[in-house]
Amino acid sequence: MSDKTILLVPSPRQVADIFDADDLARLKALGNLVIQNDAAALTDAQFNDLAPNVEIIIGQIDLPRARLERAPHLRAIINVEGNFLPNIDYDYAMSRGIRVLNVSPVFAEPVAEAALGMAIDLARGISRSDRYFRNNTEKYGLDANRDAYSLHRQNIGFIGFGDLGRAIVPLLAPFNPTIRAFDPWLPADYIASFGCQAASLDEVLQQSQITFVVAGVTSQNQGFLGADAFASMPKGASLILVSRAGVVDFEAMLDAAESGHIRVATDVFPQEPVPADHRARRGDNVLLSPHQAGAMDEALRQIGKRTVADAELIARGLPPIMCKVAQPETVAMFRSKPVSKS
Amino acid sequence: MSDKTILLVPSPRQVADIFDADDLARLKALGNLVIQNDAAALTDAQFNDLAPNVEIIIGQIDLPRARLERAPHLRAIINVEGNFLPNIDYDYAMSRGIRVLNVSPVFAEPVAEAALGMAIDLARGISRSDRYFRNNTEKYGLDANRDAYSLHRQNIGFIGFGDLGRAIVPLLAPFNPTIRAFDPWLPADYIASFGCQAASLDEVLQQSQITFVVAGVTSQNQGFLGADAFASMPKGASLILVSRAGVVDFEAMLDAAESGHIRVATDVFPQEPVPADHRARRGDNVLLSPHQAGAMDEALRQIGKRTVADAELIARGLPPIMCKVAQPETVAMFRSKPVSKS
Amino acid sequence: MSDKTILLVPSPRQVADIFDADDLARLKALGNLVIQNDAAALTDAQFNDLAPNVEIIIGQIDLPRARLERAPHLRAIINVEGNFLPNIDYDYAMSRGIRVLNVSPVFAEPVAEAALGMAIDLARGISRSDRYFRNNTEKYGLDANRDAYSLHRQNIGFIGFGDLGRAIVPLLAPFNPTIRAFDPWLPADYIASFGCQAASLDEVLQQSQITFVVAGVTSQNQGFLGADAFASMPKGASLILVSRAGVVDFEAMLDAAESGHIRVATDVFPQEPVPADHRARRGDNVLLSPHQAGAMDEALRQIGKRTVADAELIARGLPPIMCKVAQPETVAMFRSKPVSKS
Amino acid sequence: MSDKTILLVPSPRQVADIFDADDLARLKALGNLVIQNDAAALTDAQFNDLAPNVEIIIGQIDLPRARLERAPHLRAIINVEGNFLPNIDYDYAMSRGIRVLNVSPVFAEPVAEAALGMAIDLARGISRSDRYFRNNTEKYGLDANRDAYSLHRQNIGFIGFGDLGRAIVPLLAPFNPTIRAFDPWLPADYIASFGCQAASLDEVLQQSQITFVVAGVTSQNQGFLGADAFASMPKGASLILVSRAGVVDFEAMLDAAESGHIRVATDVFPQEPVPADHRARRGDNVLLSPHQAGAMDEALRQIGKRTVADAELIARGLPPIMCKVAQPETVAMFRSKPVSKS
Repeated sequence: MSDKTILLVPSPRQVADIFDADDLARLKALGNLVIQNDAAALTDAQFNDLAPNVEIIIGQIDLPRARLERAPHLRAIINVEGNFLPNIDYDYAMSRGIRVLNVSPVFAEPVAEAALGMAIDLARGISRSDRYFRNNTEKYGLDANRDAYSLHRQNIGFIGFGDLGRAIVPLLAPFNPTIRAFDPWLPADYIASFGCQAASLDEVLQQSQITFVVAGVTSQNQGFLGADAFASMPKGASLILVSRAGVVDFEAMLDAAESGHIRVATDVFPQEPVPADHRARRGDNVLLSPHQAGAMDEALRQIGKRTVADAELIARGLPPIMCKVAQPETVAMFRSKPVSKS
Repeated sequence: MSDKTILLVPSPRQVADIFDADDLARLKALGNLVIQNDAAALTDAQFNDLAPNVEIIIGQIDLPRARLERAPHLRAIINVEGNFLPNIDYDYAMSRGIRVLNVSPVFAEPVAEAALGMAIDLARGISRSDRYFRNNTEKYGLDANRDAYSLHRQNIGFIGFGDLGRAIVPLLAPFNPTIRAFDPWLPADYIASFGCQAASLDEVLQQSQITFVVAGVTSQNQGFLGADAFASMPKGASLILVSRAGVVDFEAMLDAAESGHIRVATDVFPQEPVPADHRARRGDNVLLSPHQAGAMDEALRQIGKRTVADAELIARGLPPIMCKVAQPETVAMFRSKPVSKS
Repeated sequence: MSDKTILLVPSPRQVADIFDADDLARLKALGNLVIQNDAAALTDAQFNDLAPNVEIIIGQIDLPRARLERAPHLRAIINVEGNFLPNIDYDYAMSRGIRVLNVSPVFAEPVAEAALGMAIDLARGISRSDRYFRNNTEKYGLDANRDAYSLHRQNIGFIGFGDLGRAIVPLLAPFNPTIRAFDPWLPADYIASFGCQAASLDEVLQQSQITFVVAGVTSQNQGFLGADAFASMPKGASLILVSRAGVVDFEAMLDAAESGHIRVATDVFPQEPVPADHRARRGDNVLLSPHQAGAMDEALRQIGKRTVADAELIARGLPPIMCKVAQPETVAMFRSKPVSKS
Repeated sequence: MSDKTILLVPSPRQVADIFDADDLARLKALGNLVIQNDAAALTDAQFNDLAPNVEIIIGQIDLPRARLERAPHLRAIINVEGNFLPNIDYDYAMSRGIRVLNVSPVFAEPVAEAALGMAIDLARGISRSDRYFRNNTEKYGLDANRDAYSLHRQNIGFIGFGDLGRAIVPLLAPFNPTIRAFDPWLPADYIASFGCQAASLDEVLQQSQITFVVAGVTSQNQGFLGADAFASMPKGASLILVSRAGVVDFEAMLDAAESGHIRVATDVFPQEPVPADHRARRGDNVLLSPHQAGAMDEALRQIGKRTVADAELIARGLPPIMCKVAQPETVAMFRSKPVSKS
């Protein structure tokens, strides 16, 4: 296989953060592994030199049509982050049958776990009671639970029902909830196959005591959850935001929490780090999580594992199955800025 | 059925907190329902007057042998709290075939949910990160997760494996953990039937990243988890205490948390309310829950439902199945003080 | 422990069928193990000789009050079959706090598996199509499935909801059925706690496409499922009988199958062996199972394991948990003849 | 939408078998629905007439490049059977971004159910005991179970781990088996994500008491399970064949069953109908199923539902999700003859 090249440009990550020795050995078994740690240093000259033999590109370098045309044997482009960047000519790549992948599935498991923890926290008042203890204002027993509720047999909603939503569903199963999910890209029967009910956005908002916002940002849905949406939720309902801050009107969300109408947990913010004097830092009905839901060491290790497993399949002429595969219909909608979940 | 009497002494609860109209109607269908709200006001004279016809006593009045002998038709005594008090002559009652019940099963579900929330909180640093946000000391992403871990595929331990432990197990199932349980009253095959491994106390402590303490206090196990136990846990391990404060050396537990060796979440305290200047209020590795895990409205409603369902069975000459049945071998060991979970 | 005696009378089984070397070693660790293989040979004289020191009796010897009175230290009587025979003075034993146990739980798992297999067989026409193949009358594909149905999302009923019924429920869970259960001894909330709906007998019969009959025979329910019951089932419905033949009018059941109104699978028969010319042997809508659902080697091994585990608990002064505990209210109703499931 | 055409050629099925009124109404809402029941009657002239406006073709008409080039707006080709036929120029279609789909997922559920029923049948001797009853040679209880085994905690194998295999796994979950799966197209981590272990073909054969053969036929695996494979299975092991007869050496399989080395259940045969004098019809260790595992009415209805749901998504510019999507890497390997599962 010495004539095949695997080009690895891990930036903004480090090779050692995502690939262990075994992963690298497996990549080397696929061909000539060329690692370029500094993406900015990858010149056209260097690219053009490698292009004739390159079979798989791991990383998120610019790949306009001109570059792709120089790589006649290219079979796959694997982004080691959880998004599809606008620096690739997807239409041309797909017409060539080049697979474009990202590693977003690795984040579903840790984010789902954190989302469940945040949901129980809001419903049962866990961090709030702890805070009251530290302020010597705690109450006990029934008095502490005046507005607590359970996840058991609860009405739970999902806004978005992609990998992340579907990773939360099994964690909720032992609570026997009724789950309504709004996802305009998915048929009702598909949602039903997970034991959930397809519903309109209004139905989810109005009928759910706990709502998980797990929709990615697309060119179509920025800020689509605003003051009206929050107002339509039941008094005391919980909102857990773990996908992208861009899908909500963040200030309106904080207003709804501040007024006591809803409780909010969020792992994402319009600006990170959050400004020191940001009002969110003082909310009693707010649980703040510093973009830590997905960024677990184990998720990084899974980036390497999934990347290598799919690279091996592709090298054998088989379809990838461990990474997220860019779909021709939708890839152009995910024009997220180059900031990954971790 | 007019000659049968059901004596209801709800103290320290209120009738309306635990029985709804339907529950009361069902009790009345079983006989003459006599409600005495003030337990202290139940004189021997009143008791003796009712005793000849009493079939079921709901409440926790004193029932020495002398009183029981006056109640030849008594079939059941149902405590509306989660314990068995020492004010009943259990040996005599059992020799008569009188069922003695309590409603502890109602607390298993809400406590299990809270325990899961607390476990995720400690493992993933949820309330701590929220607290840092409020102190403007939060870190983001991977930096926030330096010592975080997941429940997925984790080594999890149980100390005690009664109703409460067994209610936590299904909530953990989606995480595919390895669960070790120590319970000296239960055979290994019984624990195995729940997909868990019977283990010694040392094994549970040493091999579990997350340990749930769900043992009740008995005459034999007060303070049995002390400094040595906590020291034997892995560095960074989490301990979630949701049964009774009496089973741990509370100061040693706080020492172990303060030193950074372990993380602790506790719903119970040696003294409640906790003194205003108690050191626990300031711990960074401690999650404090003001005895709120079980005291949910729904649990109170279930007290009534379970009490009535078993009263109906007993009145029909059938064995009770919804409440906890006092066992002749062990009832004497549960000499807890008259303070219930809620 | 040399002064304590464990009396083991395994008849009608053999010691080696139910206890392995480890089991026997554990029994010997509890005291002086006396094995009397021939139950008939256990004379009053021998019994009286052992009685003063006997702590646990394993087997089903006659134990009238006169014998029990000679055994002041007796703590438990464990029947190594799945029933409670009428040769024990239960009232007296229970007034003494003597535990009376049987090993019926060991049969729940194998019988549930067989019951599921029989249900799929009837619904999908498995053995019938195989029979047609052997008669050269098979049809293919859709033509073979004209009256087939699935367990998925099906209406399924239980008549009886004891250990066996509750062992079938988890096997059905992946099919997402709606389960209705009729059991006059159980509260609706208890049945609901297994995700099933309590229903009347009529509701179960009329609304279930597949009905499992898992009720034991009691003094009250012999032959309670007759011609009217079968007629009330939907056309083409399946009945799976795996508990006792005595609960049905067997001839009426065969009539209903012969007419084509229902399909029947049965593991039990009024007379075993079934007479050579019995009409059941020729039915096209009948699946015949020669009392083989529970009699698996593994079940026999579990008899020993469960017996020993509970003997150990009882010897330590703890309540038994692995065997079926006779309940004072109901034990007298189970006056089954001394023929066990295996 | 009147300028868009949906061309429906249901052959070899009938429109009414797979689409109900609601399905057809939904198709009509997508454009001008043209139904041509007789595939043979679809002339080039008719095709060419429709081609300029056709957006979705439902059916399996010949689609060489010449025809595809005449259909510039074609977005999807949906086969209403469970395979990809060689009458489409896949490479060209894919370079155009045309989705090629089939409805194989509809068969996974009914086939999985039947496969489970057949596995329990072989393990527990259900149809065999029924046959013995009809021959008056049945034995009872333990005697009937001399070579029976359970699925509980069993070693179970899969040869192939596609849609069908993955539909069987959840049905087995309540039995807590150890599952090994051989699928050369799938990474070990993918198989592990379903709680199963990736294994070599030899490991699966040698270590499984029950093996499900669920591999499709490709150009690479015809007859790959032969005499050596069957000989390597444990004595008494069960083989359940529910995908395609072409993957086994059928005669060698029957030999292995006839010798008593293994038990075999098969839903597929090299020739259907099976010749009247075929030896398979007489085997005592064989369970014969006349290609009935998948051909359920409900599966046919799901063909329509899934087809319409994906047609709707595609019409909206979204990726399909309910049908099987042809993958560029593998579609050419599935050169099955035009005989569908039903």
